[in-house]
Amino acid sequence: MRVGERHWRPIWAEADGRSVGIIDQTLLPHRFETTRLATLAEAAHAIRSMQVRGAPLIGATAAYGVALAMAEGAGDGDLDRALAVLGGTRPTAVNLRWALDRMAARLRPLPAGRRVAAAWEEAAALVEEDVALNAAIGRHGLARIREIAAARGGAPVRILTHCNAGWLATCDWGTALAPIFMAHDAGIAVHVWVDETRPRNQGAALTAWELLQHGVPHAVVADNAGGHLMQRGQVDLCIVGADRVTAAGDVANKIGTYLKALAARDTGVPFLVAVPSPTIDWTIADGLAAIPIEERSPLEVTRVQGRDADGRIVSVQVVPDGSPAANPAFDVTPARLVDGLVTERGICAATAAALAALFPGRR
Amino acid sequence: MRVGERHWRPIWAEADGRSVGIIDQTLLPHRFETTRLATLAEAAHAIRSMQVRGAPLIGATAAYGVALAMAEGAGDGDLDRALAVLGGTRPTAVNLRWALDRMAARLRPLPAGRRVAAAWEEAAALVEEDVALNAAIGRHGLARIREIAAARGGAPVRILTHCNAGWLATCDWGTALAPIFMAHDAGIAVHVWVDETRPRNQGAALTAWELLQHGVPHAVVADNAGGHLMQRGQVDLCIVGADRVTAAGDVANKIGTYLKALAARDTGVPFLVAVPSPTIDWTIADGLAAIPIEERSPLEVTRVQGRDADGRIVSVQVVPDGSPAANPAFDVTPARLVDGLVTERGICAATAAALAALFPGRR
Repeated sequence: MRVGERHWRPIWAEADGRSVGIIDQTLLPHRFETTRLATLAEAAHAIRSMQVRGAPLIGATAAYGVALAMAEGAGDGDLDRALAVLGGTRPTAVNLRWALDRMAARLRPLPAGRRVAAAWEEAAALVEEDVALNAAIGRHGLARIREIAAARGGAPVRILTHCNAGWLATCDWGTALAPIFMAHDAGIAVHVWVDETRPRNQGAALTAWELLQHGVPHAVVADNAGGHLMQRGQVDLCIVGADRVTAAGDVANKIGTYLKALAARDTGVPFLVAVPSPTIDWTIADGLAAIPIEERSPLEVTRVQGRDADGRIVSVQVVPDGSPAANPAFDVTPARLVDGLVTERGICAATAAALAALFPGRR
Repeated sequence: MRVGERHWRPIWAEADGRSVGIIDQTLLPHRFETTRLATLAEAAHAIRSMQVRGAPLIGATAAYGVALAMAEGAGDGDLDRALAVLGGTRPTAVNLRWALDRMAARLRPLPAGRRVAAAWEEAAALVEEDVALNAAIGRHGLARIREIAAARGGAPVRILTHCNAGWLATCDWGTALAPIFMAHDAGIAVHVWVDETRPRNQGAALTAWELLQHGVPHAVVADNAGGHLMQRGQVDLCIVGADRVTAAGDVANKIGTYLKALAARDTGVPFLVAVPSPTIDWTIADGLAAIPIEERSPLEVTRVQGRDADGRIVSVQVVPDGSPAANPAFDVTPARLVDGLVTERGICAATAAALAALFPGRR
């Protein structure tokens, strides 16, 4: 998507054929910098340190990470090690496992000598497919926004989103933001309430930045504000992304999503989850029981990163010395609170039957 | 309550008989500093800038502000002006109006020459009464915590609170935190989940600091985390304060309270609101329709204050240049989501009938 006058994706194969470029998302929105990943270790570090994040982009980075690993050694042991290292970076997003399974299925039957080229090819294919999935999600979501816009008689459609499920979280377009970008491009007036998304502020830092680059009207709000806005009739639609959706429609997404889904239900605001099929974990049904929730460093809670008066990116401590913190990174929104899953094949109810009907044979 | 080895209150009449001391809460938890208010303008500024905050403490500061004003001029016009200036500082907490009404009722019948002394006397009485109200709330809440502790067989009672309703928000003890301090002092094991409470971080900055000073086990969490903790059975009780409670039991409190009440209801966790009677607005019933919600500066959302690596208190920007923000400071939790109001006269249901029964003649 657009950054200034240029089109960017958050990940790309470099022209040298031996490395991968990424936008370093830990520096946004204050500095736009790219960095180059040339080794398995660097790819794993990029995922773990959240230079790249978002379920689809984690999957794509892991796929390229396998390609980088194969260049370091392409034997079966090397492949197993790469899969283990990358698979251990982050626990919640199922796209990671999905991408690694796909790379393994493609590479394992091949002789070692053909694995490097095949890995690059497969990773690139996975990226292009992700872009296509997100574009399809965008079109289905756009149709829903268009309906709401018609009902509002031209007044802006006010959409609340949590965390960042934009193009920076995917290979392009985004999941939850794809319909919003498309609506804006189609001339539909939209206004986006951007949840700050503590502790890492992906809303304030990334979603706001994406919307600003694309010229989409928005306002950042504290995570606490969404319920109030819904109560006051200031939200027409909630749409969020997902890190893992079960076969029964339970949704693991950034911590705090559950609270917004509760408010949406209490106030009658439709709550949609944008979910490309690689984010669906067909092996589980009960999200609360079966989805591992990453517990991240308490430093993400006790400190906040931002830009100081001198333009430097710094961390400031917001708790007293000696106060501990806890930092669960995701929560599970039960399917009963989800009004629709926006997939690449259309919008369906968050139920096992509806998902199975849309994706026959995938159970 | 305790700060180091000394007992402090957040407001006091200075020995000079002409000024009021406060703890400057905008510097906590990083620096403990007191400041002196000697004029009406300084008292109004202290409330508006949130050097003092919390509904009961706003009321007490306004009462002393009237006393300071009377020293500058004690005619009827002076009194009216003081009431108008102080009454216009913040709109949501009803204690402000309550305190000013009380000061006016005491002072207006008096000749100007007796108003200064009477104002100091009345403000001091109001402070002492607030301390007594909070102590009574603490005892009633303690009884509830004791019941939960018994049911948990000695395991810590895990209590979630939002914002700061501790002694810094009142004249001493606090409202929501009073039962927690008393439980800890009584040897009951408690563990407090402290909501950070963006945008101004009163949880991370003030509640955590109070608990740390008093030795109460706690952990700070992002505002987003509470629903997850409740879903996972890690919360035994939610208790919060209030800025205004209607005669029907609707609760205006710090933005985000409504989201926690929804999660508590969805997960079966009891949700209590600690409310001294001066926080009850007997003139209104429908909180959503009738309670004015303060909209504060977007800078509170776009920037976060904390302590940098050099120990300085600085603000860092967390949004991109050019992204707007919205900052509603309170929300309304409908009475139907409140399991009990902890008042100085005991715990009652959040209904008009129960409140009227507890406070006969106050409708």
